[in-house]
Amino acid sequence: MTVSPFDHPLLSGLLGDEEAARHFSVEADIAAMLAFERALAEAEAECGAIPRDAAAAIVKALAAFRPDTAKLRAGVSRDGVVVLELVRQIKAAVGVPHDAYVHFGATSQDVIDTSLVLRLRETVEHVGLLLSENVVRLAGLAEDFGGRAMMAVTRMQPAIPIVATDRIASWRAPLQRHQERLKEFSGRLLAVQFGGAAGTLEKLGDKAAAVRAALAAKLGLADAPQWHSQRDVLAEFAGWLSLVTGSLGKFGQDVALMALTGTDIKLTGGGGSSAMPHKQNPVKAEALVALARFNAIQLSGMHRALVHEQERSGSAWTLEWLILPQMVVATAAALRLAAELAAQVESLGH
Amino acid sequence: MTVSPFDHPLLSGLLGDEEAARHFSVEADIAAMLAFERALAEAEAECGAIPRDAAAAIVKALAAFRPDTAKLRAGVSRDGVVVLELVRQIKAAVGVPHDAYVHFGATSQDVIDTSLVLRLRETVEHVGLLLSENVVRLAGLAEDFGGRAMMAVTRMQPAIPIVATDRIASWRAPLQRHQERLKEFSGRLLAVQFGGAAGTLEKLGDKAAAVRAALAAKLGLADAPQWHSQRDVLAEFAGWLSLVTGSLGKFGQDVALMALTGTDIKLTGGGGSSAMPHKQNPVKAEALVALARFNAIQLSGMHRALVHEQERSGSAWTLEWLILPQMVVATAAALRLAAELAAQVESLGH
Amino acid sequence: MTVSPFDHPLLSGLLGDEEAARHFSVEADIAAMLAFERALAEAEAECGAIPRDAAAAIVKALAAFRPDTAKLRAGVSRDGVVVLELVRQIKAAVGVPHDAYVHFGATSQDVIDTSLVLRLRETVEHVGLLLSENVVRLAGLAEDFGGRAMMAVTRMQPAIPIVATDRIASWRAPLQRHQERLKEFSGRLLAVQFGGAAGTLEKLGDKAAAVRAALAAKLGLADAPQWHSQRDVLAEFAGWLSLVTGSLGKFGQDVALMALTGTDIKLTGGGGSSAMPHKQNPVKAEALVALARFNAIQLSGMHRALVHEQERSGSAWTLEWLILPQMVVATAAALRLAAELAAQVESLGH
Amino acid sequence: MTVSPFDHPLLSGLLGDEEAARHFSVEADIAAMLAFERALAEAEAECGAIPRDAAAAIVKALAAFRPDTAKLRAGVSRDGVVVLELVRQIKAAVGVPHDAYVHFGATSQDVIDTSLVLRLRETVEHVGLLLSENVVRLAGLAEDFGGRAMMAVTRMQPAIPIVATDRIASWRAPLQRHQERLKEFSGRLLAVQFGGAAGTLEKLGDKAAAVRAALAAKLGLADAPQWHSQRDVLAEFAGWLSLVTGSLGKFGQDVALMALTGTDIKLTGGGGSSAMPHKQNPVKAEALVALARFNAIQLSGMHRALVHEQERSGSAWTLEWLILPQMVVATAAALRLAAELAAQVESLGH
Repeated sequence: MTVSPFDHPLLSGLLGDEEAARHFSVEADIAAMLAFERALAEAEAECGAIPRDAAAAIVKALAAFRPDTAKLRAGVSRDGVVVLELVRQIKAAVGVPHDAYVHFGATSQDVIDTSLVLRLRETVEHVGLLLSENVVRLAGLAEDFGGRAMMAVTRMQPAIPIVATDRIASWRAPLQRHQERLKEFSGRLLAVQFGGAAGTLEKLGDKAAAVRAALAAKLGLADAPQWHSQRDVLAEFAGWLSLVTGSLGKFGQDVALMALTGTDIKLTGGGGSSAMPHKQNPVKAEALVALARFNAIQLSGMHRALVHEQERSGSAWTLEWLILPQMVVATAAALRLAAELAAQVESLGH
Repeated sequence: MTVSPFDHPLLSGLLGDEEAARHFSVEADIAAMLAFERALAEAEAECGAIPRDAAAAIVKALAAFRPDTAKLRAGVSRDGVVVLELVRQIKAAVGVPHDAYVHFGATSQDVIDTSLVLRLRETVEHVGLLLSENVVRLAGLAEDFGGRAMMAVTRMQPAIPIVATDRIASWRAPLQRHQERLKEFSGRLLAVQFGGAAGTLEKLGDKAAAVRAALAAKLGLADAPQWHSQRDVLAEFAGWLSLVTGSLGKFGQDVALMALTGTDIKLTGGGGSSAMPHKQNPVKAEALVALARFNAIQLSGMHRALVHEQERSGSAWTLEWLILPQMVVATAAALRLAAELAAQVESLGH
Repeated sequence: MTVSPFDHPLLSGLLGDEEAARHFSVEADIAAMLAFERALAEAEAECGAIPRDAAAAIVKALAAFRPDTAKLRAGVSRDGVVVLELVRQIKAAVGVPHDAYVHFGATSQDVIDTSLVLRLRETVEHVGLLLSENVVRLAGLAEDFGGRAMMAVTRMQPAIPIVATDRIASWRAPLQRHQERLKEFSGRLLAVQFGGAAGTLEKLGDKAAAVRAALAAKLGLADAPQWHSQRDVLAEFAGWLSLVTGSLGKFGQDVALMALTGTDIKLTGGGGSSAMPHKQNPVKAEALVALARFNAIQLSGMHRALVHEQERSGSAWTLEWLILPQMVVATAAALRLAAELAAQVESLGH
Repeated sequence: MTVSPFDHPLLSGLLGDEEAARHFSVEADIAAMLAFERALAEAEAECGAIPRDAAAAIVKALAAFRPDTAKLRAGVSRDGVVVLELVRQIKAAVGVPHDAYVHFGATSQDVIDTSLVLRLRETVEHVGLLLSENVVRLAGLAEDFGGRAMMAVTRMQPAIPIVATDRIASWRAPLQRHQERLKEFSGRLLAVQFGGAAGTLEKLGDKAAAVRAALAAKLGLADAPQWHSQRDVLAEFAGWLSLVTGSLGKFGQDVALMALTGTDIKLTGGGGSSAMPHKQNPVKAEALVALARFNAIQLSGMHRALVHEQERSGSAWTLEWLILPQMVVATAAALRLAAELAAQVESLGH
């Protein structure tokens, strides 16, 4: 099944990004959920919340654990989340008597949200590198062509002469601000989620804070109070993704408009046409505009999901699943395409 | 890769629909594109636009044709569309001298848009059947529980007593209007797209109208002037999909609210919780709300794509690909879930 | 206060439409609400649901009624709707003993929704006329310039020659389909809302159906079962508005792109620039694109409001108020601007 | 005309905010634009870019200047911006020979964008104060009722007992993060826009940087390179507004749900019903949800406007005008309502 172009064997060649998509595969998700359960058992044993033998048995079983994915699928269909069935399978693998300490004090949302954050950490790093590459490439364009003349265009009309550096700056400066923003929100985003049934870690008593801190440390995440019904960090992150694709969309739009008028840019390797062999379509530039629009639209959904009913909203949470991974991959794809497009610029201005 | 829950091996158990998704697979898309090329060759031969021998050779070659999908993927990445490379492969399969008549007078958009419409025809039928099933199931609820008392709730406050029929009617009547609307727009939606390089079928001269009519007839679609830059029928269809999921979202929301207050509904088979074994979560009801929101958000993008630059807009067209298939599958999934949820209602009112 | 450009004394000169906006003034709203209360009293007297004397007293008092708007504003702030305070004021004007029959059997939503529909009837007629004018103007352009050559542009690249008629058809044909759609949905849209406290007209007993039919007839609306929690007709109407502005946005975008390349169009009376006196900006064309995007975005909210909780949702209903009037005015403004823009076309093609 | 509830004499009683709306009045906009022209003349005289006499004459004329708003409206309708006509009127007021130095080296966008930023500075301060008030009020609720028991609700089902503090924290903690974010982005947002016709300040030669710095200092804004086609700071600000309303929407939704089940909250002063005198509707809570959805939807448009064509996009810029002021007022209104709602809480938990 390949409903989304990001998953489509053919269309993802243009619109996808393999590295980013990899982190949203079932395999990556399950691996991150197992990492959570392992770190939890270890943290709880260290803090005296579960027996050390139990933790050892859990860690050992997890190392060899292979889930029954058909049953996981049926579990999602029934429970709305995968964790209930996954924990059942892990418990079976651990066996009596230590199985009682698997997932101890945790709830589905702890596992799923922390798994998400673990994988966002990887994708944020990937996206950050692609962003830096774009800043460098645009600096390269400025170096190569910056002093050449071009015609400014305001309100879809030729205005007065500028130099290429002026327009390139309007592409690069926002990307540099996005790098700044990335630093600002990363600390808020990359935090463990651990709250138990309703956020109070009631099963861990006075060991709750210590277990959460140990869990976060083991996973390499920031320690923070549970945020299961406070989704602002995810909406903020989504906003950043859309800021990035929006800025790249402007780059794409500008390149496509220059390609249309044909005087101020030369591109190599544009797309062919099945009816008109003479054409060189600015395919990557158009894709950047499409991805910018896509993310701008999706962002609305991530903000809609801020209205998260009481201690856990199935509907708001599910909406995030439908949207956020696609936004991440769209952003990575746009960054890849923008870097490729910059490399296709043979000349700018004259 | 499984970036979208609709493609995700586990999450699609809840949020997907296999039958609808099947029509958006690579296999279904390629099959429909080959059907277009075959019908085109036949129609052109019948109208004297290409030699009958050439058409026969093309039809024969297509019957045995197996695409090289790795090259198709590279083609999409380069050209922004799959057709250029697909036609190159078909021509190679047909061989000299008939290869010159493959895809004759057509352009990429003709193939891709008509392939889409062919597959929408199947999904519209599927969705129409699911819609009827829901109307019937809700009629069943009215029959079983219609006379029982329940408390009306206005502005999140208990109001005055009503009977179950009253609330059920607010779920069913919109679905019946959606059936009416389906009949109104289907004729506009299910039309062939055939215009050539820029919509004028300039290579077919005075045979253009006859070829288009024959092509449409062979494919079982309505004949219509090219609409390659007029996307209102697709946006209208997307609007209908979101009307359907919106109405089902209200059903889901109402069920979830009734489950919360706990007095007016009993459900069987709710979802379990990994932390609280006593709970029965209204998982399908919540998913209906999430899918309604998802489609409401996406619809904005399909309307954005109405601003389709001049004779063909790569960015507006690509945006449709990113959105429409997911809206169709979301709608089919919502209809499936709503029917299942109606079947889970053990009692309504009292 | 002039937060919205549609209400802004200066910006509405470009982006507003006086005739459409007039129907969303406080005066128009109150007039329509009073028309509802008058027709209701008359209908109920005719059907024997209230005394004829009471109806006469109500009709007489309404004729001279002038609301205290400061108190109405305070009422909205307290109750979320204006009707409670408005009815209180009407009752005071009617006086004992007939005041008991004011608003008899009705609820706030009956008054507000029916008032909206009454005013939508006027705006639909206005918008329909503007739509026809646009179809005629585009036909005029085809008559004047249809045979002239222009260059087709596909994927932001010059493609092959077409004639002006080809491009004009892509602007006009969708408008003609919008005329067709208008006929299809008008019957569904222009229906009375009358249901009482929770939709059951429980105070009218066996006279309920007759009163509703008489009320509808007096107001010139279709009779229909209450639809207070079924908002699909409004979302469908909003979708139509956005289809219209989307199609006009394509017209605007095409004109702006032609103005940019400068070879295929000549416009008179473009906008001036404070820094560059030589420029003629395609201001109306750009505004069409902005209004298309605006409506495409808002539409998402009207579909979101389909998830209307139980018998009445304050939040979903309020969201409609925030969005629908602006969509109507944006559409009227776009139609006005498009007709003006068509009139500014001095030549097309060459 | 009162198309938007934010401008509506009655509805703004619930949904508006007078202080925020004031900054988007024509009067406030013109005052800010005149402040720009005055500061520009002074800055240019100080830097030797225009004669000191000219600056003195301009400052004097501006002090007494009263615009002809009917002509300004016609100017917007013709030019798409008000500045051309406004500058014409100012020049007439200044008279020969100093009129040549009015608006020297500037363009419409410099005036309009800087006027916007000047007024955003006021609204940001207002909104920041309201935000602090909400944090304090929620702290007050925690103090008054924090230790009382309530039932956690997860996935629309009663879960396990928590204390009121737990739920209050989920309302307050995001607001505190919004305070932190406000500090991060304010510096980026509150910067002068000054670039001249195409961003290069070409008329000011080597005095450009000094004039811009002096202009910024006089206006109390940060100095920054022109950002006329880089709209990320505005989209970022819009995102923050929607984060705020989203968090308040959760508060509203939680209160409405508690009011529905009726066990964990007591509110004073709920809204009345015209049909059911016994009801106390949680009107402010519902309005918070509506405003959250409104902003979530609008945000998509502000991100869409990031794709700003080349040196100035009439369509992207106009779209911002249609959206941003309403988002600001919606946010101020939501903050006001949330503080009022918190004050209406008579008891929480039990």
